[in-house]
Amino acid sequence: MTGRLAIVGLGPGAPELMTPLAAETLAAATDLVGYAPYLARVPERAGQRRHASDNREELARARQALDLALMGRSVAVVSSGDPGVFAMASAMFEAIETGKPAWKDIDVTVVPGVSAMLAAAASVGAPLGHDFCVISLSDNLKPWDLVLKRLEAAAAGDFVIILYNPASKARPWQLGEALRLIARHRAQATPVIFAQAVTRADESIEITTLRQADPSRADMRTLVIVGSSATRLVRGPRGPFVYTPRHAELAPS
Amino acid sequence: MTGRLAIVGLGPGAPELMTPLAAETLAAATDLVGYAPYLARVPERAGQRRHASDNREELARARQALDLALMGRSVAVVSSGDPGVFAMASAMFEAIETGKPAWKDIDVTVVPGVSAMLAAAASVGAPLGHDFCVISLSDNLKPWDLVLKRLEAAAAGDFVIILYNPASKARPWQLGEALRLIARHRAQATPVIFAQAVTRADESIEITTLRQADPSRADMRTLVIVGSSATRLVRGPRGPFVYTPRHAELAPS
Repeated sequence: MTGRLAIVGLGPGAPELMTPLAAETLAAATDLVGYAPYLARVPERAGQRRHASDNREELARARQALDLALMGRSVAVVSSGDPGVFAMASAMFEAIETGKPAWKDIDVTVVPGVSAMLAAAASVGAPLGHDFCVISLSDNLKPWDLVLKRLEAAAAGDFVIILYNPASKARPWQLGEALRLIARHRAQATPVIFAQAVTRADESIEITTLRQADPSRADMRTLVIVGSSATRLVRGPRGPFVYTPRHAELAPS
Repeated sequence: MTGRLAIVGLGPGAPELMTPLAAETLAAATDLVGYAPYLARVPERAGQRRHASDNREELARARQALDLALMGRSVAVVSSGDPGVFAMASAMFEAIETGKPAWKDIDVTVVPGVSAMLAAAASVGAPLGHDFCVISLSDNLKPWDLVLKRLEAAAAGDFVIILYNPASKARPWQLGEALRLIARHRAQATPVIFAQAVTRADESIEITTLRQADPSRADMRTLVIVGSSATRLVRGPRGPFVYTPRHAELAPS
């Protein structure tokens, strides 16, 4: 008897940003699977089994969850933010495509969540108010040349650029190179946002510029947003807001 | 006495995808401001005033909301999806920047929501599993040449491309031109998703290809997602899933 599997977005961190659908799906599951710090954000329920794993084991975690569903369990795989944006959903479908044929018969659903980029943007105003690109700077699973090609395209297109996975201990130089590439296309005063641990207790948000941005400020829990040629600051009561206007012109290139 | 103003994302449509923070903020407001069909999604509360407006009057609506806050009211401006993605937040900061000096002292917050693109992606699998670009096809507030420039950049960078505002009665040809432009860079079998009224009672999702995509299928309530060179289908129990793998290679260009 085949069970069911839901890939659930917990939202960016604050409990009040987890959707009721996510909360209900988690409460209804017999088994929770996920990276240990994300599982820790889910309220305990008696009788529910928890399968915590390390952060780097995404495919192994996906396969474990699919096997549990195949045994008839009702499985929820937890993901921070939205599961579809650089998170567990893609790994899950990769496991299904390349794994046991019976996994293709499992009832799989994806429960969307408020992604970190939306929460980061909201915390400073509306920097994503116009066309934007989302790029992971991690070259663990793609060649750095592809990252550069996409950064070049995004910069040439005058998109607002959101950088996921900007830095880690093993990847210390990528963000500096990315910002230098973008700075060849954009004014030095272009707003840059470092959003760390958004909506969590230790949240830290910095609004700076391309000229002054310090790449060493970023870590694994940081998102970086680089404005387009139109992104600007507006004075607010507690410091500036950042927004990108709805109207736009062709910037000189 | 200055009040407060929150720009609140209602989520894509289903009530169970509205966050608790959004629901609490709406319940605490003295005044709700927004496009009438969005206001209709908010539960009625005795004593709360509702200010409904037409869809095209974003700046006028923003100014009305700021004046209400200036009078000491607690105002919630409602937005579908996430307020920061082609929605009310940008118009609000534009109004603040260009309007009455006293508006800059109002306590403004943005409450993020599950955006339509995240819900659309979740409904078919994980098409946004890797780098993506988000582009509005509306040329009401930007020149069509800028849209073309960004489409060209996004296509050249092999991004997954999400098209907001793909069509309306006044803009019937833009989506066809956009898809033809992308097709010059991508295989004809590239997956294309038309997601209409996502998570609402009349939701309609179509998975097709660049070759077969019919632009006349889209309307004002449709999002279109075009896959990258890596986006693929996987068999599922109720039809195919669409996903973009986490790993990627440099596509031949």
